[in-house]
Amino acid sequence: LDIAIEEVGIPKSSALQPEYLVASPHRLVPALELDNGTRIGEAMAICRYLEALHPEPPLMGRDPEEAALIDMWERRAELEGMRGVVEMFRNANPGFVDRGLAGWTTPVPQIEQLVTRGQARVERFFGILEDRLGETEFLGGAAFSVADITALCTVDFAKRAAKSEIPPDATNLLRWYEAVSSRPSAAA
Amino acid sequence: LDIAIEEVGIPKSSALQPEYLVASPHRLVPALELDNGTRIGEAMAICRYLEALHPEPPLMGRDPEEAALIDMWERRAELEGMRGVVEMFRNANPGFVDRGLAGWTTPVPQIEQLVTRGQARVERFFGILEDRLGETEFLGGAAFSVADITALCTVDFAKRAAKSEIPPDATNLLRWYEAVSSRPSAAA
Repeated sequence: LDIAIEEVGIPKSSALQPEYLVASPHRLVPALELDNGTRIGEAMAICRYLEALHPEPPLMGRDPEEAALIDMWERRAELEGMRGVVEMFRNANPGFVDRGLAGWTTPVPQIEQLVTRGQARVERFFGILEDRLGETEFLGGAAFSVADITALCTVDFAKRAAKSEIPPDATNLLRWYEAVSSRPSAAA
Repeated sequence: LDIAIEEVGIPKSSALQPEYLVASPHRLVPALELDNGTRIGEAMAICRYLEALHPEPPLMGRDPEEAALIDMWERRAELEGMRGVVEMFRNANPGFVDRGLAGWTTPVPQIEQLVTRGQARVERFFGILEDRLGETEFLGGAAFSVADITALCTVDFAKRAAKSEIPPDATNLLRWYEAVSSRPSAAA
């Protein structure tokens, strides 16, 4: 899809740019601005909106049962995977001192115990993925979906930010990771 | 809808029953079991599945833009509201010693700082709701939706488990709370 992208700060520094904060008081990225000015936040709300407008290829299932399993695994990837990586990263990184929670304007102290807990969550998530990917080709089922996208972002973030590698004996997860990260869209 | 409900333990004790855990190794509630045996976890995946089968009355929007705003606010209610209450509750409650994260089979220590942080998240969430409900009648927009359901569960859980009351000057939030909690379905 051809959507104009505007970077608002995260990759360049650890703070969002003031212009963005004024326009989007909720203080989180990403946001999709429609032509009528409506601003949609939350990554998966944006994905679902774009999917409704462009249903081919289907990334959220083709019937209610497929959609439900994809939805379930996408949320697990976020809540059990991504949240663990973020918990570890934000509480360990010197760039996030007093910024323990995203979007806050008042100081939120880092909590050292969350670094260890976050690390344990990431390792557990690798095990969850390994088990599931022993049953199905992709995380949500037989087809590539948004569940794989969230899980791939989580694994890549864990590798880069938390120095967590996929265990060498997690053969299903390694097979999946090779397949999904070699898709052209993964390089975008 | 007429769906058979089976309690698996939470209201009676702090642990899930063994029968449920065997059938559902992911160790979380709720789950919806379909007639073909497929088990759908994650509350919102279940809601979306039921909505697809029973679209009237619509609880997830009638067009992609409405759906996106409802989706966004439902996720905010969960991530910024419910997660804060849960953070506070699990880390403060003696029934959850070494059970700091749901679904784990190994001990997860409680973290005292998360009690304070969770409390602050709940108070901030009340402010987010108050601002939003000054703009729209319901959280997702003009109509009652799943976003209101998640937010109502959050406020009720905060009142009951965390002894957090809606601030008396949060007039929009109080107006909304009175309206949504007096719906017949809120008593179910």
